[in-house]
Amino acid sequence: MDVLKDNDGELAPESPALDVRVVLVSPLYAGNVGSVCRAMANMGFSELVAVSPRIAEGDWPEAERLAVHAGGILRNMRIAGSFAEAISGCIAVAGATARDGLYRQHIRFVRDAAPDLASIARSGKLALVLGREDNGLENDEIQLCTHLLRIPSADDYRSLNLAQAAMVCMYEIRSAASSPELPGEKSPPASAGHRARLFEAWREAMLATGFMKEDKADHMMQGFARIFSRGVKTEDDANIMLGVARQALWASSHAPRANG
Amino acid sequence: MDVLKDNDGELAPESPALDVRVVLVSPLYAGNVGSVCRAMANMGFSELVAVSPRIAEGDWPEAERLAVHAGGILRNMRIAGSFAEAISGCIAVAGATARDGLYRQHIRFVRDAAPDLASIARSGKLALVLGREDNGLENDEIQLCTHLLRIPSADDYRSLNLAQAAMVCMYEIRSAASSPELPGEKSPPASAGHRARLFEAWREAMLATGFMKEDKADHMMQGFARIFSRGVKTEDDANIMLGVARQALWASSHAPRANG
Repeated sequence: MDVLKDNDGELAPESPALDVRVVLVSPLYAGNVGSVCRAMANMGFSELVAVSPRIAEGDWPEAERLAVHAGGILRNMRIAGSFAEAISGCIAVAGATARDGLYRQHIRFVRDAAPDLASIARSGKLALVLGREDNGLENDEIQLCTHLLRIPSADDYRSLNLAQAAMVCMYEIRSAASSPELPGEKSPPASAGHRARLFEAWREAMLATGFMKEDKADHMMQGFARIFSRGVKTEDDANIMLGVARQALWASSHAPRANG
Repeated sequence: MDVLKDNDGELAPESPALDVRVVLVSPLYAGNVGSVCRAMANMGFSELVAVSPRIAEGDWPEAERLAVHAGGILRNMRIAGSFAEAISGCIAVAGATARDGLYRQHIRFVRDAAPDLASIARSGKLALVLGREDNGLENDEIQLCTHLLRIPSADDYRSLNLAQAAMVCMYEIRSAASSPELPGEKSPPASAGHRARLFEAWREAMLATGFMKEDKADHMMQGFARIFSRGVKTEDDANIMLGVARQALWASSHAPRANG
């Protein structure tokens, strides 16, 4: 915010109501953090949170140097002790990832997702999450993302610099912000905390019904995360939810030992 | 080119025929040149020319460091003594500029110009020109540009980092040239019949667990239909799915009458 005030005392008029929090997960290089600050100011955003940065004390001046006129964003950056804390209060969590694989099938190109994200950022706070420079996002972080974003890139060098990836995502969200809004929901968007309680409750319930065993629970919860974030799209999705129903039915008609 | 060959010996198949030369006019910071190299490799480009760089000999390792796996592009970079020499052989010259003013009225947003630029780069060589970090492009350079590009940005911090600006321009040209496909779902889309069975199974299961009674079932099934079609979006959605979990848990620990 400071950086914006430094210049002419007001936010960029073109994006008056986009509420975006940029979340850097355990960043390693101070220069990247500074470059993200500058890119944020360029794109009209100001709220930055870093989860457990791995940056040595002596390296922070490099962040200040690369932030250039966006030093205010850097100085107002908050440090979070956990990913859950960093996304707290956000109604949607969009994570950028270059990796494919299990449970990442609902990934979308950032351009395709941008209108949704802009719409979300008009009605509540959107977390835009960038993973570690060296290891990206872990599965338990992916699970808390409501959207997964891919930046199209060359097959033989897919991994973008952190600040470059942040820039492209912010550029797309900003560019999409002029697109029309969807008719509003009557119910407010579910918060990150609400979603976290939902995951806990489902884990407990699915263990209790016997739908899954403890050793498969992490695996299965990723499947639920995918379904909760985008609905039942595929045969796999449908089969999972069919299985839930069958198991709930079975559990409802077979007495647990506690009662027998 | 080297960096691309380092990996699997061929260019990214999605952008087979885009002939783009990136031209940096008198760059000042080695780190920026390295970051441009990486962004080029990410976006599938490889030809780089620098006009009279102002980089001290001892600073070049910083360029190598920031190029990461795109060191081959850096090592193949050519140095030109003049702007005219740098753009020689190009059929069009697109210069990015953050400044307005005289002789710049034909400037276009990079997204709007990108389809033309991609089309040009398919039939001949396109020069993508980025100006000096401190002073942008001079009027005599602007005059040699066939296209002027603007990246939309916040009014109060319009000047992007050199490599960030290069990334956005290359990203737009690449995006205009190809319709990349994400690695598809492995699971095919759920059919209407599959969905219908899912709804039947859920109705039966939710009645069995006691989550809903017969007279409310039609109503509740509409809620599930909404969630199955788009995921858990709102507080209402989250509360419904929390209720499902709680009821399944309860049903799993309370014997049904049939068994008692």
